[in-house]
Amino acid sequence: MIYYCLLFEDFETLDLFGPVEILASTQNAEMHYISSEGGVVRSAHGVPVVTEKAEMLLPGSVLVVPGGMGTRPLVQDAAYLSMLRNLADQAEYVLTICTGSALLAKSGALDGHRATSNKLAFAWAKSNSDAVRWIGSARWVHDGKFYTASGISAGMDMALGFVADIYGKEEAQASADWLEYNWNDDCNNDPFAVEG
Amino acid sequence: MIYYCLLFEDFETLDLFGPVEILASTQNAEMHYISSEGGVVRSAHGVPVVTEKAEMLLPGSVLVVPGGMGTRPLVQDAAYLSMLRNLADQAEYVLTICTGSALLAKSGALDGHRATSNKLAFAWAKSNSDAVRWIGSARWVHDGKFYTASGISAGMDMALGFVADIYGKEEAQASADWLEYNWNDDCNNDPFAVEG
Repeated sequence: MIYYCLLFEDFETLDLFGPVEILASTQNAEMHYISSEGGVVRSAHGVPVVTEKAEMLLPGSVLVVPGGMGTRPLVQDAAYLSMLRNLADQAEYVLTICTGSALLAKSGALDGHRATSNKLAFAWAKSNSDAVRWIGSARWVHDGKFYTASGISAGMDMALGFVADIYGKEEAQASADWLEYNWNDDCNNDPFAVEG
Repeated sequence: MIYYCLLFEDFETLDLFGPVEILASTQNAEMHYISSEGGVVRSAHGVPVVTEKAEMLLPGSVLVVPGGMGTRPLVQDAAYLSMLRNLADQAEYVLTICTGSALLAKSGALDGHRATSNKLAFAWAKSNSDAVRWIGSARWVHDGKFYTASGISAGMDMALGFVADIYGKEEAQASADWLEYNWNDDCNNDPFAVEG
């Protein structure tokens, strides 16, 4: 599959690179690191990543959207939200981590869908859309073509869940073992749940 | 503290960026992403990261060394090993993840110390030095100024353990909670142990 990882200034480092470790290890994965303008984009922890300019997605692709403090200005940026909505509409699947779901919700792409978000920023995430059915207790939520994860490290559990859905549970477990990772494989098992 | 993260071609993405997420969030953390020659370095999953050229470390700094397939050619590169040894000698602490310990071991810096490594590549890691006391059952090992983690995701547990040692257990637990992460906080609890 072709993965497009959407970076922006002050994205949360592990939100993106936890899932990248897992998704990029699947069969014939092709990775693209993109941003609205291209060039070097820095994570919240100062990691400078070279990105391609976001344009059309190839058919059958997956869009991956991290969260982080960088989402705060972007939910007020109409041009950015329009670009994001356009990318999401083109993608076969859209995976968000942490407050990436708030950004996607604000674009309108999640309207009518169930979704979750970071539990320490849940009220803020919800405030970005009344048209989303926000789930306060979920490690991750899968609804239609959308996968939304809870905070930061939950992105890895969700990415493994996505791999299980696409390639089978055995492949996902093999990936977790390769990572020496204790996978929380139950999307409803949320140790950090909040009121919905 | 000042953290120098040493990147090389084909480093394992999560090895580095799991710990970065945790270490960079500590009080007054200053992050540097370095490589032997500087410039853009790609992870095993094609993440292009802009690095500074490795030179002298500032006093009181921490060197972070990931693993991955990129370590395989480097253990045969005498000039690289000499540079790594020089950096390790300057650092107040050295943290390795996965087969990063094999690379550090080959440089001689770990001679006489206890250390662990990736459990799926443990025999190979050991083959790089007879002067290291390799521990086959450990999520991570702390010996003197060295912290060595087991495979890939173990780097996050070790980074939280390092934070606990430096700033206290409460701060480390707060960081794990912030990540919504189920921290394995016992360095001796290794679900992926092998014969030592």
